[in-house]
Amino acid sequence: MATLPHHLGRSLAEALRYVAAWKGRTVVVKFGGSVLDSPSLGTLPQDLVLLQQAGVRPVLVHGGGPEITRLLERLGKTTRFVNGLRVTDEETMEVVEMVLAGRVNKHLVTLIHRAGGRAVGLSGKDAALLRARKHAPGVDLGLVGEVAHVEPKVVEVLLDAGYLPVVASLGFGPDGVSFNLNADSAAAALAVALRADKLIVLTDVEGIYRETPQGRELLSELTPEAARTLITEGVVSRGMIPKVEACLAALEGGVRSAHIIGGEIPHGLLVELFTDTGIGTMIRKREPEA
Amino acid sequence: MATLPHHLGRSLAEALRYVAAWKGRTVVVKFGGSVLDSPSLGTLPQDLVLLQQAGVRPVLVHGGGPEITRLLERLGKTTRFVNGLRVTDEETMEVVEMVLAGRVNKHLVTLIHRAGGRAVGLSGKDAALLRARKHAPGVDLGLVGEVAHVEPKVVEVLLDAGYLPVVASLGFGPDGVSFNLNADSAAAALAVALRADKLIVLTDVEGIYRETPQGRELLSELTPEAARTLITEGVVSRGMIPKVEACLAALEGGVRSAHIIGGEIPHGLLVELFTDTGIGTMIRKREPEA
Amino acid sequence: MATLPHHLGRSLAEALRYVAAWKGRTVVVKFGGSVLDSPSLGTLPQDLVLLQQAGVRPVLVHGGGPEITRLLERLGKTTRFVNGLRVTDEETMEVVEMVLAGRVNKHLVTLIHRAGGRAVGLSGKDAALLRARKHAPGVDLGLVGEVAHVEPKVVEVLLDAGYLPVVASLGFGPDGVSFNLNADSAAAALAVALRADKLIVLTDVEGIYRETPQGRELLSELTPEAARTLITEGVVSRGMIPKVEACLAALEGGVRSAHIIGGEIPHGLLVELFTDTGIGTMIRKREPEA
Amino acid sequence: MATLPHHLGRSLAEALRYVAAWKGRTVVVKFGGSVLDSPSLGTLPQDLVLLQQAGVRPVLVHGGGPEITRLLERLGKTTRFVNGLRVTDEETMEVVEMVLAGRVNKHLVTLIHRAGGRAVGLSGKDAALLRARKHAPGVDLGLVGEVAHVEPKVVEVLLDAGYLPVVASLGFGPDGVSFNLNADSAAAALAVALRADKLIVLTDVEGIYRETPQGRELLSELTPEAARTLITEGVVSRGMIPKVEACLAALEGGVRSAHIIGGEIPHGLLVELFTDTGIGTMIRKREPEA
Amino acid sequence: MATLPHHLGRSLAEALRYVAAWKGRTVVVKFGGSVLDSPSLGTLPQDLVLLQQAGVRPVLVHGGGPEITRLLERLGKTTRFVNGLRVTDEETMEVVEMVLAGRVNKHLVTLIHRAGGRAVGLSGKDAALLRARKHAPGVDLGLVGEVAHVEPKVVEVLLDAGYLPVVASLGFGPDGVSFNLNADSAAAALAVALRADKLIVLTDVEGIYRETPQGRELLSELTPEAARTLITEGVVSRGMIPKVEACLAALEGGVRSAHIIGGEIPHGLLVELFTDTGIGTMIRKREPEA
Amino acid sequence: MATLPHHLGRSLAEALRYVAAWKGRTVVVKFGGSVLDSPSLGTLPQDLVLLQQAGVRPVLVHGGGPEITRLLERLGKTTRFVNGLRVTDEETMEVVEMVLAGRVNKHLVTLIHRAGGRAVGLSGKDAALLRARKHAPGVDLGLVGEVAHVEPKVVEVLLDAGYLPVVASLGFGPDGVSFNLNADSAAAALAVALRADKLIVLTDVEGIYRETPQGRELLSELTPEAARTLITEGVVSRGMIPKVEACLAALEGGVRSAHIIGGEIPHGLLVELFTDTGIGTMIRKREPEA
Repeated sequence: MATLPHHLGRSLAEALRYVAAWKGRTVVVKFGGSVLDSPSLGTLPQDLVLLQQAGVRPVLVHGGGPEITRLLERLGKTTRFVNGLRVTDEETMEVVEMVLAGRVNKHLVTLIHRAGGRAVGLSGKDAALLRARKHAPGVDLGLVGEVAHVEPKVVEVLLDAGYLPVVASLGFGPDGVSFNLNADSAAAALAVALRADKLIVLTDVEGIYRETPQGRELLSELTPEAARTLITEGVVSRGMIPKVEACLAALEGGVRSAHIIGGEIPHGLLVELFTDTGIGTMIRKREPEA
Repeated sequence: MATLPHHLGRSLAEALRYVAAWKGRTVVVKFGGSVLDSPSLGTLPQDLVLLQQAGVRPVLVHGGGPEITRLLERLGKTTRFVNGLRVTDEETMEVVEMVLAGRVNKHLVTLIHRAGGRAVGLSGKDAALLRARKHAPGVDLGLVGEVAHVEPKVVEVLLDAGYLPVVASLGFGPDGVSFNLNADSAAAALAVALRADKLIVLTDVEGIYRETPQGRELLSELTPEAARTLITEGVVSRGMIPKVEACLAALEGGVRSAHIIGGEIPHGLLVELFTDTGIGTMIRKREPEA
Repeated sequence: MATLPHHLGRSLAEALRYVAAWKGRTVVVKFGGSVLDSPSLGTLPQDLVLLQQAGVRPVLVHGGGPEITRLLERLGKTTRFVNGLRVTDEETMEVVEMVLAGRVNKHLVTLIHRAGGRAVGLSGKDAALLRARKHAPGVDLGLVGEVAHVEPKVVEVLLDAGYLPVVASLGFGPDGVSFNLNADSAAAALAVALRADKLIVLTDVEGIYRETPQGRELLSELTPEAARTLITEGVVSRGMIPKVEACLAALEGGVRSAHIIGGEIPHGLLVELFTDTGIGTMIRKREPEA
Repeated sequence: MATLPHHLGRSLAEALRYVAAWKGRTVVVKFGGSVLDSPSLGTLPQDLVLLQQAGVRPVLVHGGGPEITRLLERLGKTTRFVNGLRVTDEETMEVVEMVLAGRVNKHLVTLIHRAGGRAVGLSGKDAALLRARKHAPGVDLGLVGEVAHVEPKVVEVLLDAGYLPVVASLGFGPDGVSFNLNADSAAAALAVALRADKLIVLTDVEGIYRETPQGRELLSELTPEAARTLITEGVVSRGMIPKVEACLAALEGGVRSAHIIGGEIPHGLLVELFTDTGIGTMIRKREPEA
Repeated sequence: MATLPHHLGRSLAEALRYVAAWKGRTVVVKFGGSVLDSPSLGTLPQDLVLLQQAGVRPVLVHGGGPEITRLLERLGKTTRFVNGLRVTDEETMEVVEMVLAGRVNKHLVTLIHRAGGRAVGLSGKDAALLRARKHAPGVDLGLVGEVAHVEPKVVEVLLDAGYLPVVASLGFGPDGVSFNLNADSAAAALAVALRADKLIVLTDVEGIYRETPQGRELLSELTPEAARTLITEGVVSRGMIPKVEACLAALEGGVRSAHIIGGEIPHGLLVELFTDTGIGTMIRKREPEA
Repeated sequence: MATLPHHLGRSLAEALRYVAAWKGRTVVVKFGGSVLDSPSLGTLPQDLVLLQQAGVRPVLVHGGGPEITRLLERLGKTTRFVNGLRVTDEETMEVVEMVLAGRVNKHLVTLIHRAGGRAVGLSGKDAALLRARKHAPGVDLGLVGEVAHVEPKVVEVLLDAGYLPVVASLGFGPDGVSFNLNADSAAAALAVALRADKLIVLTDVEGIYRETPQGRELLSELTPEAARTLITEGVVSRGMIPKVEACLAALEGGVRSAHIIGGEIPHGLLVELFTDTGIGTMIRKREPEA
């Protein structure tokens, strides 16, 4: 810690206050980037393990886009995207499932294990954790689904036994058909079902920015209303929209706060959780005045 | 049940005696065949669910040979076999892991769910369940491993919570490297670590046969010594050898009995467990006389 | 079991489904016949023990008519019957109590013990299990009583500890006066108080029959309404009336089904509980359609 | 209480010290006299209930001699006695069992219930509580037995649930044959198996007396050695001998003290347990000096 | 106990009925007198220990007037009293706290320990047990407070662990300022918060007296209404008024009965609790007739 | 925390590792300075509360020298010191007890309460926590004692219930006589009895220093042997000697490490516990090499 014990002591006191506050609370972390390209993972595995050792109950939810594309290409299969969503036929779905549940998921489990934790990988199909139905936005996207119901018990059983659950965003459709789920909204739905206190979405930017005459400004705290206005005004755009919407869905479902933070800052997860200022953008309802 | 209530009553009494005997006992079942070709699975998912509802603690361990070969072929990758073992380079291992943990495992989970159970898929890498080391039989087989240590707690946690664990035979090597494990011996090692009462190996034949002047005779019970003699004499040969050796390893590790039965007989698992005569071959130590 | 493993497997699957369904459920069995004449008991002690080992909670309720008459005769005491009910003066009551609680009860306890169970004999006076009041149907029958209140805790304590309770149908009247109770209705009242799932009345016929042009037909399932009609029409008559009425009382008190079966069929209790077709007559409310 | 509060207070302090000392301790009380002749029972039912409410765990063991003789006479059956032991053929044994388990036992249960307690009657055959073998003192006494093994769990289960167990001195012989047991030694064996702190034998005299020049003197405390000497010297004689021997057997088996007291003194059981001086004779090993 | 075992037995039976009735019940005892002058304490420490060993949950609340005055005098500090209440400036409060929590409290703890108990001394400031606010009766009394809120958990934790809590009547005011509390009302407030069954106020007289033509008569039982009338009529006067008012406050708060008894009668506490007649005055609501 | 999130993140990761390591561990903190002079207390109350909220089990032990002297002076009582120990006659002891248990203890309880904790004050006399005997170093020091036996259960009960125990260093001597105990050694004895992981002695210097040609150097870690050598060589001298000896006694009794740190550094307790470098001197055995 910095050189002056005076500052150090004060920082520790602040951090311990947060440690006490988060003890026993569930925090769902969503990580979407490429795993094999491990620099983007940064200190995530280590941070999750530290969180768990400090008494927090972390759950990791992940997607795995780039890896899927890579395998599809090797198999000579081209993908069509409609509004940013991959049209998923049966053969594609097989590949999605193998990559998410068999490759990305087990790689994350391994990295957490190396950092000293005991992770257990699940997909939304295990114990029918994430029940899904077809996503039907007007065009037929094939096996793209949305979460219909979450049965969170298996995650709670594993947390209670001291394991760190890692969940691949696959859904269990009618008759056991597999569905491809958006990982941001899967994480939000799981956070709601677990009555989590926080949803933290890791991205490749550091949070939500606004352009000002003085340059770009990171917004460190927003109300849900303000976040919706930013979408309407186009300040939040493209890839950031589904992330913000997942945050809003989590808040509506009772999660206390939702965060969008940069995944590459070393120990960013810890800084966001254990300091007053944090590093990214937190969305939270305004508390009624006492 | 058959038409005469007299026989029926006696059969029920016999079955209930076994129900009482197996209550709370752990039974590890190994299934190795192709999953997508579901006739070979027969009534297995249903039987596992019935076992669990009757108070038994079943655990399913699986491999997945044919599926792996199929994907490797599609990727234009040829495999070399040495003494029946697939030489596994890194690229092959990636495919093995994706198929076992991402495809076969999740398919079995789905089938058990449809039969009314709540399955959770694991690979040997989750919670570092199956620690492995390189298998070094003189030739270099690459990432072919053997079980070095089993940490069965995650399986027990799931059983205690009422889930049916389904384990893909992958190993967690030094530094988290993945290893391809023989599913028969992985099942045996897991049975020993769980202090299981039984190991049941499902195969495509009905048990161990001996040629007699009167024709082939199914051996319904053997001692470990007799089983070893049958290997030496060549009565047990080829693909059956590793299955019998897995059984012998389980018995040495304290498992009470090991069974080799045909996977295609409807409810064969139930007949083997709940009747005096069974349908396959049981290997068991001779109990010392009282 | 029958010779064809195919049938066998299916029967086992069916039986296991019932084992799972009855696990932890309470079943009250009423046995009224002569004990010393043990053929009529058939496999009852063995079946009760098997039920308990399979996780069911069986309770046996018994009367003891013939034995009582025998001792009264030896003591030179004649009995008067009014409408099939024994007029019971104090001296007779002493004999009834000695025979039921001291002889029949302890003999059943012994037989269950020999079959491998651990039975504990109770009368309705122990822990004031069966509170009774005078039965007053217009004529004075002396110490013939009817159940006023059941305090089932002692039976539950013994079941929880793994014992098999055997209850003699004696009642605890005001000031501790003993009352002679009809065993069928005592069993029904106990089943209601224990929130049992089933009441099974063992008789010397195989169930309820109806005459048809083709001969006698065993009715394997009836609604309570149909059972009442059969009484009104005289199809159910004489000794069968109080048994059917006890069944109806149990159903009204919330017991899910009541059965009348022949006590002499080997393992009849098991066949009735663990197969789809059963062997006797089951009375059950029609479930509302979903 | 007596008129002077000073004495009263001191007596209460003394009594409370004993209440604290006996809390949670098991006390086996043996009562052998005629029940129907209730004055001889005195305040016994009430005292047992008060003991239990004060936190002691009382168990009552009883015989029933006079009642048995009465019924045998009515049945025209004469009894032969050898050395004070009733020669017991099968027919006699039937009567013994009916009277003890069906009449005396249930009568005691009723009296305790009336005094506010919740008693459960057992015989030594229930849950095979008192395993017996043939008593073979040189002459053939028929079905007279001695205790071979006690399995006290059912008594403990009932005590833990707040019931007051009342045990008839019948034994469960090989193959379930009933045996007539001496109630004094049955009580001693049960006290040993329950690791009871006290055995209290109620009799029709007030304890052990010695003749002195000044008249008869009640011995209020004795060592086992002194008690044995009194037998040898003939001071203890006839009916008192088996009572003293039962006390000595209990002490040898680890019971802390054994008492012989008069059953007819009002609340004699309480006075013996809760005052320094007591009312009868206590036999206890001399404690080694600290 | 008195010489006649007949009376003795009956007294014991009566006492045991009360032992059973008070088992597990909480009794708050208030003792106010001087501790160093130990005769006035009489058998209190011993009685509290006996109560606790008999299963009662006793709590002792104390003041300490004379000791406080003594130390103030030694420090040359004079005290002004207004309506019997000590005007308490900060310096006086320091002395009050030292004497009550540091001297009287620890002395009582020691005496109870010597009598065989395990006492733990608390003041109302520990765990903020007795929250206080300024007592403002029109004149400024300084740091004289009244109970604003009781947080009884620490007392319950200690009782559950088998300790005997001894509470000094000090209050925890806003910002942690210490307040001097009247011990009678502190005891009443604690009794209410603990849902105690009894409040017993020890005094230097034997209870409430009324003058009659025949002389002074001790009133052994009163209703709250009668007690209020006695205050109005001046029969209860001076120092007795706050004691009676504390009793009435306890009864209003749900305590079942409140007693005023003489502290110097040997084992008076036991006589009051364990006999029908008691020794002092009990105030209790008239129970509605059944 | 300092401005660079990079450093911040690393510091947090380091702190969390310690949080995990100390969770559930007991830490005894000794504070000896004057309480009324609160600057010297610094952030101690706050730090203790943060420790407890982070899952550590802190216990505070205190003396109270200056306050005692002040009150003795006001009472006109002079004190004689022999080798730095206060010769303690009965009258002095009374004052010591009042100041420690009634004033300093309750003041610390109040300060912790204000910092958000729930403290319970004890002296070594409560529940006979610190049994003492006369300290007899050749001269008669009167009521100066040393710890003879610790009975830590009351402290554990309070910790388990979430309270923060504050212990005044008074001893319970034979017959309940009070003894004045050295707070350093009382803290060490309590740490041993509680199987604490750490003893932390707060002082008015920052640790143990050694003079070097470059100036005074703070020794941040020492083995017990090195600490003893420093005493022998006179590097550790005067008031520091008993503190170092208390540390050595704790280590011998099984405490894992003992620390001497400056009490006035803000949050010094936290810096010592939650950073690699700490701020004072830690004495710890050299771990055997693995």
